[in-house]
Amino acid sequence: MKAEIVSIGTEILLGQITDLNAPYIASLLPSLGIDLYRIHQLGDNKARLADTFRQAWSRADIILTTGGLGPTQDDVTREAISELLGEEMKVDPELEKHLREFFNDRNYPMPLSNLKQATLIPSAQPINNPRGTAPGWWVEKDGRYVIAMPGPPVEMQRMWNKEVSPRLRKIGATGVLVSRTLKTFGISEGGVDEMVASLLSSTNPTIGVYAKHDGIQLRITAKAEDEARATDLLAEMEKKVREMLGNSIWGDEEDTLEGNVARLLLLKGYSLATMESCSGGLLANSITDVPGSSEYFKGGTVSYTNEMKIASGVDPDIISRHGAISAETAEAMAQACRQRQGVDVGVSITGVAGPDKSEGKPPGTVYIGIATPEGSESFYRTVPGNRQIIKQRAATAALYELQRTLQNLD
Amino acid sequence: MKAEIVSIGTEILLGQITDLNAPYIASLLPSLGIDLYRIHQLGDNKARLADTFRQAWSRADIILTTGGLGPTQDDVTREAISELLGEEMKVDPELEKHLREFFNDRNYPMPLSNLKQATLIPSAQPINNPRGTAPGWWVEKDGRYVIAMPGPPVEMQRMWNKEVSPRLRKIGATGVLVSRTLKTFGISEGGVDEMVASLLSSTNPTIGVYAKHDGIQLRITAKAEDEARATDLLAEMEKKVREMLGNSIWGDEEDTLEGNVARLLLLKGYSLATMESCSGGLLANSITDVPGSSEYFKGGTVSYTNEMKIASGVDPDIISRHGAISAETAEAMAQACRQRQGVDVGVSITGVAGPDKSEGKPPGTVYIGIATPEGSESFYRTVPGNRQIIKQRAATAALYELQRTLQNLD
Repeated sequence: MKAEIVSIGTEILLGQITDLNAPYIASLLPSLGIDLYRIHQLGDNKARLADTFRQAWSRADIILTTGGLGPTQDDVTREAISELLGEEMKVDPELEKHLREFFNDRNYPMPLSNLKQATLIPSAQPINNPRGTAPGWWVEKDGRYVIAMPGPPVEMQRMWNKEVSPRLRKIGATGVLVSRTLKTFGISEGGVDEMVASLLSSTNPTIGVYAKHDGIQLRITAKAEDEARATDLLAEMEKKVREMLGNSIWGDEEDTLEGNVARLLLLKGYSLATMESCSGGLLANSITDVPGSSEYFKGGTVSYTNEMKIASGVDPDIISRHGAISAETAEAMAQACRQRQGVDVGVSITGVAGPDKSEGKPPGTVYIGIATPEGSESFYRTVPGNRQIIKQRAATAALYELQRTLQNLD
Repeated sequence: MKAEIVSIGTEILLGQITDLNAPYIASLLPSLGIDLYRIHQLGDNKARLADTFRQAWSRADIILTTGGLGPTQDDVTREAISELLGEEMKVDPELEKHLREFFNDRNYPMPLSNLKQATLIPSAQPINNPRGTAPGWWVEKDGRYVIAMPGPPVEMQRMWNKEVSPRLRKIGATGVLVSRTLKTFGISEGGVDEMVASLLSSTNPTIGVYAKHDGIQLRITAKAEDEARATDLLAEMEKKVREMLGNSIWGDEEDTLEGNVARLLLLKGYSLATMESCSGGLLANSITDVPGSSEYFKGGTVSYTNEMKIASGVDPDIISRHGAISAETAEAMAQACRQRQGVDVGVSITGVAGPDKSEGKPPGTVYIGIATPEGSESFYRTVPGNRQIIKQRAATAALYELQRTLQNLD
């Protein structure tokens, strides 16, 4: 089944509110086996609504609308649906009775304008809306559907979950979609694309490649008659992708690097401290984004000068011999965390955030140090981007190496 | 001028991400004198994109697109624009050179797939994108425009503000529009609304109120036949707004708190160090977002435990007497920055990021300490939000108080 969503409200086009109804519905359609082809956001304009409805009606099996069901003159969603189907709106006695009761219960005289909320067209059944005065419309004609829901998310979401979704599950279920997100780090979007190129042409499962702040993500989506079969298809494809990308994959679904690191540290009962220069505190900030991080994170140092690195326990000879931006200094910084803060694991970052070179090294040069009870190690990376993005990627790289290191400890 | 926005990305239709680009652009079009008629959200599908482009081209003067400019096979926005105009994409030598330099500068081999990011069509000029590898396209044909921008908000917003908006301002406005953004901190959006309520009904200049991560912003936009008259209108209104909001206004236009603090520190020749707990390094991170911050920022401590606060020079008696989350400890932390790091100015944050209470104090409790050559002071705030937002607002509050303090020093 093909669907299109029409989100209605002039305030959306003025940027006064962000339409959260379409993303909400969009995220729930795949599990109903319904494919979403287009989202439209339109103002309360009958002519443009009817025009968009006509086009969607010619392309899709299901049109889902939110908004424009209010009592005021500028709410014209019902009118536009009536025009689409050439049917006349009439007040429904049952709905009118229900509506008047709604106002009586609140000792509130019903404004005449609200009466339009009690109207129906022949092809429409009302959809119950206990959270507001506007019932939805469930319109079925020629084997296609228009489902009109109210705009306020609190009303729309209840109507979706209790009324609309269960009915769509029955008609939509020409199959089930399951999908899975794999998260990588250290490969560019183009690089990931090349590594899995042979799989990208697959139509079921499909693979999407997306750039995120913590690396490139792959989304595998499989479709089948039943969940078991779809899950099998997905698993096959996931196996191939994992073979191709190997260690670059650090997590899936809702995983975050700082969350994975937290789990590993708590599992091993290890404490953590940081010392960072070019990332300027962003590493410590990411680590402390995790609720309860105070259980394992003792603290961090933003050693922006050599003096502060030395005061924090880094051997001045190492800095003078190899430079502050070097593998040796990174490793010494990580070791200093363990010694000075008395923690099990120290992680460090030193590098060049830019815009200018430093010690003759270009922006994006990053050295990471990690010290554990089993020894210490350093890692070198060059990351693209402006100053802020380099800081972000340096911190992400450190968390990635920290996760790998913790995973490899006995 | 009529505009339509097309937000492109299959992940939008799958509900994996919420399109924040369209609302962002939508909120800024009115001040350009451009009317937005429709927003479309589509997947990375060339046929459907071209179909939507054709319709929008027949209705609107300006088509604004975001997304689908990546290097991968599934990014087809350029291809769809080329099809719309019947023009052929060719690699532009200048763009290719620039792109190869981008990768060379980062010692990063350029994947062949990236080459499509260096293509143009005859009607398209490239739009500079220093934050990524994908330049935008500025297409002008038959007095109409297609403006293609990248999907990542960090790239899109910079391109919008620095490149696209200024050019649209010239095209869109009949007459001259001048506008000015005033930035406040410490007042809620509703609070700002109430304080300037008597001005909000003004139609020229108009006033828009927007919530940003660093406080509430007001955008004043004046329209007139010539710039001088528009500037006068703007100045009158700005005067009224400044009288109503007073000290809450910390900057305007492109100002950032960390940038203002940087200017003041360099002006006075003062050095800076930080000690923070609940903000977890975000204060140091904001300070080091400023290029050249190493000139005045010596470093910071993320003292997440009392031991580390004490090891960093905070008197244990103060902590035991008043608690780690107290005005006294905040002030002692700021003083310790000056003594231990030998800087002129120390700034500190201690508080509760949540989700749980700490020392019986609720999440959002924040104490800020500032120590200068002229003495030390503490500031108390309660900020709403979840853990990450509380961290952000605590760091913003500290920068706001630091700017005020530095401004008041002789």
